[in-house]
Amino acid sequence: MDNVLGLRCIHCGREFPAKPGLYTCPSCGSKEGILDVQYDYAQIKHQTTREQVENSRDYSVFRYLPFLPIKPETPRPHLCIGWSPLYKPAGLGESLGLSNLYVKDDGQNPTSSLKDRASVIAVIKAIEEQATTIACSSTGNAASSLAGSAAAMGIRTVIFVPGRAPQGKIAQLLIFGANVISVQGSYEDAFRLSAEAIERWGWYNRNAAINPYLVEGKKTVSLEIAEQLHWKVPDWVILSVGDGCTIAGVWKGFKDLYSVGWIDRLPKLVGVQSTGCSPLVDAFLENRPWQPAEENTLADSIAVGVPRNPEKALRAVRESGGTMIAVRDEEILEALRELGKTSGIFGEPAGVTGIAGLKRMVAQGTIGRDETVVAIVTGNGLKDVKNAIAAAGEPICVEPSLPLLIEALQQRGISSNL
Amino acid sequence: MDNVLGLRCIHCGREFPAKPGLYTCPSCGSKEGILDVQYDYAQIKHQTTREQVENSRDYSVFRYLPFLPIKPETPRPHLCIGWSPLYKPAGLGESLGLSNLYVKDDGQNPTSSLKDRASVIAVIKAIEEQATTIACSSTGNAASSLAGSAAAMGIRTVIFVPGRAPQGKIAQLLIFGANVISVQGSYEDAFRLSAEAIERWGWYNRNAAINPYLVEGKKTVSLEIAEQLHWKVPDWVILSVGDGCTIAGVWKGFKDLYSVGWIDRLPKLVGVQSTGCSPLVDAFLENRPWQPAEENTLADSIAVGVPRNPEKALRAVRESGGTMIAVRDEEILEALRELGKTSGIFGEPAGVTGIAGLKRMVAQGTIGRDETVVAIVTGNGLKDVKNAIAAAGEPICVEPSLPLLIEALQQRGISSNL
Repeated sequence: MDNVLGLRCIHCGREFPAKPGLYTCPSCGSKEGILDVQYDYAQIKHQTTREQVENSRDYSVFRYLPFLPIKPETPRPHLCIGWSPLYKPAGLGESLGLSNLYVKDDGQNPTSSLKDRASVIAVIKAIEEQATTIACSSTGNAASSLAGSAAAMGIRTVIFVPGRAPQGKIAQLLIFGANVISVQGSYEDAFRLSAEAIERWGWYNRNAAINPYLVEGKKTVSLEIAEQLHWKVPDWVILSVGDGCTIAGVWKGFKDLYSVGWIDRLPKLVGVQSTGCSPLVDAFLENRPWQPAEENTLADSIAVGVPRNPEKALRAVRESGGTMIAVRDEEILEALRELGKTSGIFGEPAGVTGIAGLKRMVAQGTIGRDETVVAIVTGNGLKDVKNAIAAAGEPICVEPSLPLLIEALQQRGISSNL
Repeated sequence: MDNVLGLRCIHCGREFPAKPGLYTCPSCGSKEGILDVQYDYAQIKHQTTREQVENSRDYSVFRYLPFLPIKPETPRPHLCIGWSPLYKPAGLGESLGLSNLYVKDDGQNPTSSLKDRASVIAVIKAIEEQATTIACSSTGNAASSLAGSAAAMGIRTVIFVPGRAPQGKIAQLLIFGANVISVQGSYEDAFRLSAEAIERWGWYNRNAAINPYLVEGKKTVSLEIAEQLHWKVPDWVILSVGDGCTIAGVWKGFKDLYSVGWIDRLPKLVGVQSTGCSPLVDAFLENRPWQPAEENTLADSIAVGVPRNPEKALRAVRESGGTMIAVRDEEILEALRELGKTSGIFGEPAGVTGIAGLKRMVAQGTIGRDETVVAIVTGNGLKDVKNAIAAAGEPICVEPSLPLLIEALQQRGISSNL
């Protein structure tokens, strides 16, 4: 890891060597003392070039190995994580009134969410630290991605999820052989119990904000966006925000590329939450410290009342010159339908919350119709079928008879359109 | 399409020009007169080489354009279909006692099943024929893949599914804006009603066995397997069988490569069905014509009592020198668990039926421990969460308290292992 200089506390600014077991700043404590991996960008520039990356046949996050805080020789899970497609869906662009709209579909990952990018790094770091059990709390996706990557390496996992986590995510966890603890309470309750248990048993800690390496996995989504756009940076990148780690990772990725001179400017970021749980949006818009919020949204992955990485997230948006916005749950379901119908992409509610925010931003004129926008879909809709059906309605049920079918179609007034 | 010579009836052997609207043999009728696309292999060899394909940056089914029966200039959906990962999962290999086991995870496709490969070709052919509505009947995956690719192109779909289709597949259809007809009956009922409705309204017909072009999309899975193994053909390819179209496609792919001289031998195919619905396995093993069967298996995608492509399927297995086998539903659920736990891959029941068959074939000594085997996982487990939970059990529910957690873990005798 001669590319890594050390870990820097985002609160007090002190730097520490990147030692096993060091998760948070020893001076500032675990709440505020989030650490950030510091790279030797001169060393990275020495190790690789844009052209070398472009010619790589490794279509996974490891395409960007010189930007990752792992030893190149550490064994890795076989799962092919990252290099998700960046689409330019004409139908959705038309529907939203945008001529340069791209959608990064991160539901196309082995466990069907962006979180695979973080979990694979967690598993590799756990192997480097010779841990045999990894634990985390999660609204669901971090958990299932961790369980998947750990299963591929034969490592045990203990996963804490809030009772409300959707069935699809629970099913993944169980199939991957995780020890699943369904905590009868909020995400905050699950997080706290996991912290106590990790302390008690000494497991490797994959909790996203606490573990400084996870943001480094998530940032690969930006490295890919930049490369897929031939290093032309979009004007805006828009995505949902829960704990705050993903948007922090997105920012870190673009900053890394800027630091090595592979891109010549930075995008503006837009973080979107549900009005049912918007502690970070509220803090951003009112320019005040964040306060705990209720977790009252159907977008379960971003129902995070006590975000664990608020500072990294808020700084990312502010530094980028971007903004934050909250949308109603009905707008999220509308985005789910619109994305699916116009482009054949199926996201989970939190996965399409960025699209819902984008729709508003275009309507209010903040985002111009010819600007280049990348919306990140963070998770696959199959993870939360219940809400998809709530969004899209029920099928037409008929007995197997043509006359009955004709009647059913006529009743709905659709036969004449077909 | 100067690579296509015409369509040949697999029953009477007569050849016809590949004209729009020609689905089945005019002499033999729609039941037996399945048509097969005939290629000019000399022309394909003239158009492309193995090295050209290897150097292509198009990581989708269109990487193999010279082998596809479509016009290169026809507009295509933006979805990135194909080039699914071929894993060598050490844990599963160990568990099954195979030293050269590969898993092709076709759940990693835009709508999360192998059927995307066929549907994208259907949509392109429909565009070539200037159709505005496409219809099909399906146990679920063909339907959702068709709805996805059609949505990406703004084409209407009418989809007939049996009432038992799992919620995940229904949700995909609805989100992609399909007109979904849930037929209260068997797959056979859904198929028949769709045929009548297609006749009545003149929609483009994507029914898999009837439409001769779908097998051509499915065959890309074999082209990829061969390339991913650096053109070293595996000893065995094993997968589940329902209608029979997929295994026919797998065979066609290898035969195409053999015909142009890119591979020097052919693999043996193993087709696996559930004992609850095994008309093709029974016909194969007893060497007699197939007979309609009950649809009595939880593996919904292969619960096909009246297979629509029996001849192509049975011929494929026989020509390859392979075999067929039926496994119990409990073995399918066991394979689902084993695959997930040892390798982080989550398949739907029909998706892992090949793995269940493989386990038996190894146990009975038909497949040798050092032979090279590729098992195809045909669909993602998130499509059928109910059966995944049936396979894997329920999570441990606790109130948010460490003492209660300790007690719960102790009760299950797992705390000491962690």
